[in-house]
Amino acid sequence: MVRLLTKENVTELLNMPDALAYVEEAYKQLTLGNAIVPQRIGITDPAPGLTLIMPGIIGGEMNALATKIVSVYKQNPEKYNMPTVLAKIMVQDINTGDIVGIMDGSLITAMRTGAATGVSVKYLARKNSTSLGIYSAGVQARKQVSAVYWGLNEKLERCKVYDLKKYVAEDFKKEIEEELGIDVEIANSGDDLLFGTDIIVAATTSTIPLFSGDRVAEGTHISSIGAHAPDARELDSTIIKRASLLTAGLKEACLSEAGDYIIPINEGIIAEDNIFSIGEIIIGNKQGRTSDSEITVFKSVGISAQDVAVGKLVYDRAIKEGIGQEIDF
Amino acid sequence: MVRLLTKENVTELLNMPDALAYVEEAYKQLTLGNAIVPQRIGITDPAPGLTLIMPGIIGGEMNALATKIVSVYKQNPEKYNMPTVLAKIMVQDINTGDIVGIMDGSLITAMRTGAATGVSVKYLARKNSTSLGIYSAGVQARKQVSAVYWGLNEKLERCKVYDLKKYVAEDFKKEIEEELGIDVEIANSGDDLLFGTDIIVAATTSTIPLFSGDRVAEGTHISSIGAHAPDARELDSTIIKRASLLTAGLKEACLSEAGDYIIPINEGIIAEDNIFSIGEIIIGNKQGRTSDSEITVFKSVGISAQDVAVGKLVYDRAIKEGIGQEIDF
Repeated sequence: MVRLLTKENVTELLNMPDALAYVEEAYKQLTLGNAIVPQRIGITDPAPGLTLIMPGIIGGEMNALATKIVSVYKQNPEKYNMPTVLAKIMVQDINTGDIVGIMDGSLITAMRTGAATGVSVKYLARKNSTSLGIYSAGVQARKQVSAVYWGLNEKLERCKVYDLKKYVAEDFKKEIEEELGIDVEIANSGDDLLFGTDIIVAATTSTIPLFSGDRVAEGTHISSIGAHAPDARELDSTIIKRASLLTAGLKEACLSEAGDYIIPINEGIIAEDNIFSIGEIIIGNKQGRTSDSEITVFKSVGISAQDVAVGKLVYDRAIKEGIGQEIDF
Repeated sequence: MVRLLTKENVTELLNMPDALAYVEEAYKQLTLGNAIVPQRIGITDPAPGLTLIMPGIIGGEMNALATKIVSVYKQNPEKYNMPTVLAKIMVQDINTGDIVGIMDGSLITAMRTGAATGVSVKYLARKNSTSLGIYSAGVQARKQVSAVYWGLNEKLERCKVYDLKKYVAEDFKKEIEEELGIDVEIANSGDDLLFGTDIIVAATTSTIPLFSGDRVAEGTHISSIGAHAPDARELDSTIIKRASLLTAGLKEACLSEAGDYIIPINEGIIAEDNIFSIGEIIIGNKQGRTSDSEITVFKSVGISAQDVAVGKLVYDRAIKEGIGQEIDF
């Protein structure tokens, strides 16, 4: 029997605090060597878009085995009135190999990407943080705010948002104020975000740095989850140089995909040894923030373990609550 | 909408002549550079079995994009009363990336593996071939016989089968005689198969050669679809040396996985240049059999393009014939 879960089912079953806990556990098991994230497979030519095949396995107590198939087709909205990004997650029973759950993966992708930032906030932001500045007001960004809110144990009070599309920012403001009960201010420029914010999140499609690193206040925690190509970045070399702690969802993944780290490494500004997987901090191998004045950075390019963990969470809950359709095929 | 197809649906929709045509087309498009078979991903630890993730894309007129997730868990029968091999194929719309079909992949795996042999028989066996000797009487072997039958344009008259399990061979005899209307003889030894057979098929789980290559008659065509590890093989170095034409489903795949070729290469008996993808013969780049006395060999380790092609065939036919369940998720 295969449990099929629509986007609506997933929405009903998944909340950010749980996503955060599961992504944290995934990072922990990765560092402990109980999880494996194979290099993902990308397929394009001769298709007009990109498909990524992202399998992964997490042992420990989670015992999760799943594969996400996610496609990014830029022509979809215009040509077919369909979303650019489509995703499904196939969950296997780790004991038999059988595919037991298949679910829409779009919300899970947004939630697990948010959760990555949430985990970094939990471990690296100043404990007295109350304000966030976020680049982009898109769907992804909204889950980022929610994740920061829960990563700070609901202590987030204010959020400044900057988006080139003003109407998207206004929609964001309405949604976030209603959802989280925090004040949202629409910034007039990207630089605006840098003042009076304890945490900065970059969740854009930009391939060049969003702000000048020398304008960032001491004590800030920064999370970048956009840009994921060796020659693309959201953060400039200055902020990487100023930061006293550079972390990654998974160090190896960032070293092969994140220009935010690859470019300053190639410039000789930092070395690979300066970067730590967040799991190292979660398990206590590496100390996190040590003062209120230091700048901390987290970079995530997205790894299958996040999808595998959250997919398992959703599947288990669907079984428990009897949600979704069960089909024998 | 996603079309879900059970094993029964797939059985209803798929026949060997079509599987053969689609696998042939996949090989052709691979050689023409219109298809891509990424290195498959294998996941085991910490699971008690192996999962293979096999995506692929085929352009040309087929326009197929799909991923097979296949698991091999040896404990399944004993521990869970479930099959060792479980598989599902996710078919995407190549134009939008959307997953539009999900189907049971076990029959497709057997059929496409058979079809590979069938294509080799079509191009490489003597035109006057009428007899087959097959090692193993298992599920896989039965599809091999069917494929040889269709690869020979229904001219197959006799089949000798050898299996260590006599009752499996007897069951095989009953099934094949009924299905194809040919005579099946149960051989008493592996060597028995070598006499009076125009075509030899090896479809076993053996990791060592099944027969001595010097006992094979001139003019024989041999297909080996078992053994798929660099140190495992069904064919010995003698037969590889005697053969005048060595072919592969996909040369690159066999050079990294098939001991049947890797071992004799390492022994200096043949060189990589002596091996040709069957697609080269299909498109006419390389001549096939040139005389009735030469020995030809085909080796296949199984590649995603076979699953992608046959998966697309089954999906298209399901849509056309209104078979399967359509679910929006």
